[in-house]
Amino acid sequence: MIVYYNSEFPHKDDLKISPFDRAFLFADGVYEALRSYNQNLFRLDDHINRLKYSLNELSIPFSDFNSIEKIAKELVHKNNINSDFSFYIQISRGTSFPRSHHFTEDLIPNVFAFVKPVSDSTKQTSKGVSIVLVKDQRWLRCDIKSTSLLPAVMANQKAFSLGAFEAILYRDNFITEGSHTNFFAVKNNIIYTTPLSNNILDGVTRKVVLEICRQNQMKYYEELINVNDLRFYEEFFITGTTTEITPVVKIDDWIVNNGKPGQITRNIQKIFNIYTNSK
Amino acid sequence: MIVYYNSEFPHKDDLKISPFDRAFLFADGVYEALRSYNQNLFRLDDHINRLKYSLNELSIPFSDFNSIEKIAKELVHKNNINSDFSFYIQISRGTSFPRSHHFTEDLIPNVFAFVKPVSDSTKQTSKGVSIVLVKDQRWLRCDIKSTSLLPAVMANQKAFSLGAFEAILYRDNFITEGSHTNFFAVKNNIIYTTPLSNNILDGVTRKVVLEICRQNQMKYYEELINVNDLRFYEEFFITGTTTEITPVVKIDDWIVNNGKPGQITRNIQKIFNIYTNSK
Repeated sequence: MIVYYNSEFPHKDDLKISPFDRAFLFADGVYEALRSYNQNLFRLDDHINRLKYSLNELSIPFSDFNSIEKIAKELVHKNNINSDFSFYIQISRGTSFPRSHHFTEDLIPNVFAFVKPVSDSTKQTSKGVSIVLVKDQRWLRCDIKSTSLLPAVMANQKAFSLGAFEAILYRDNFITEGSHTNFFAVKNNIIYTTPLSNNILDGVTRKVVLEICRQNQMKYYEELINVNDLRFYEEFFITGTTTEITPVVKIDDWIVNNGKPGQITRNIQKIFNIYTNSK
Repeated sequence: MIVYYNSEFPHKDDLKISPFDRAFLFADGVYEALRSYNQNLFRLDDHINRLKYSLNELSIPFSDFNSIEKIAKELVHKNNINSDFSFYIQISRGTSFPRSHHFTEDLIPNVFAFVKPVSDSTKQTSKGVSIVLVKDQRWLRCDIKSTSLLPAVMANQKAFSLGAFEAILYRDNFITEGSHTNFFAVKNNIIYTTPLSNNILDGVTRKVVLEICRQNQMKYYEELINVNDLRFYEEFFITGTTTEITPVVKIDDWIVNNGKPGQITRNIQKIFNIYTNSK
């Protein structure tokens, strides 16, 4: 597997990062994960805009956004990938020595990227998945897509150890989002999702779902969802770049709707599939 | 400079970390920073116990604690260090591929370490430093000494950009700790510091200060300090492994006690110096 690092394309086992890369010592970096449909990166502009936002909030001076699509294409080419792929790109503040929390402005960001064929998600999107509810212990700037991911790792691991697909997080009794997804609920044909704030990521697939709702006269509210009120909703789904639109059929021990994906979720999936296949 | 990584002692520019080390992608690792007095690691047992705690809370299966002092000694030797030194050791969950938030139990932790001579801290400990108050935006498990440090980096950078030495963090109006220090205040000859909880690190120097208080009949309370009540206190200091006991003489725009370190702070410093020099 060929990866990318600072203008070079080494084999993943030859590329070696400096231990003084601030991503390694301080989680001082940001990232994006994209995927392709028909080998075109889906919603590239949205991902680039979010990357710009993350970089700006952290004062990381990367600006070569035009290179991103080229890097992805070159990685696809060099790895002989003929299918759809996911593309990960991480930008750290740079390498600094000696180790100190604060930084100077002369650091040059380090850019790391790789691609891999997307796994087949048909089973999870057709059958649905289980989720578990986990207390949100993350920091208060989850709107920044940073590599400071340990709390998300621990939440996701809790789900994994319980045989669930995802951990859905709640803070002060209200659902924020998943460890790497956004969360939606449906009640009386109305779609609900957590409003944007510093506590959640502005998910690209979340945004596409709300576009689909608007374009198809499906009513939605961006409103806080109380974790104690989940039983008043009829359908749930989670969204993400590789998760796409995945129905939730079990929450902790509660089997939702006899374990079947809901009709509104199905409708949104269908429109989403048309949408992505046309790209 | 010779560093340590997984049983080897390469030059820092030759050692290169895999990009799939989970510390690089997920901040999935823990660390300790120690220092020596008279070339002996100070409070090694306390640091090892805290490291064990951090590792255990994250289910990282490292157990070769006996190697730690040997690694430090070998690094000191190989780098020809004849002065007192600081010693950094980081243990990540390991290298895993492909990238996924959750992990399996077969990963082998990666151990990285380096030493460097300690900088002379006489100026800061004798004259005191400025601090700024910054909202605590970190996660809810600051009792774990993890590399998920981005919020601490951003807070410390804010202090640095304002010409201050440290950012002191507050959550819900109560002081937690500094971005890499613990915080103490003095009122009517009584010493106050934030009680241990999931919101602060169990600082080794903090613990030593409380020992000093007990052994010298200095009254102290582990009590929450309201950020709005700071003006009712007469002295402040911060503690840390390399920060030692550093007086605070300015908080935001407020010059404390005419900019002079307080008498109780001085007394604790004196006892601390005797204490460390006897080690």
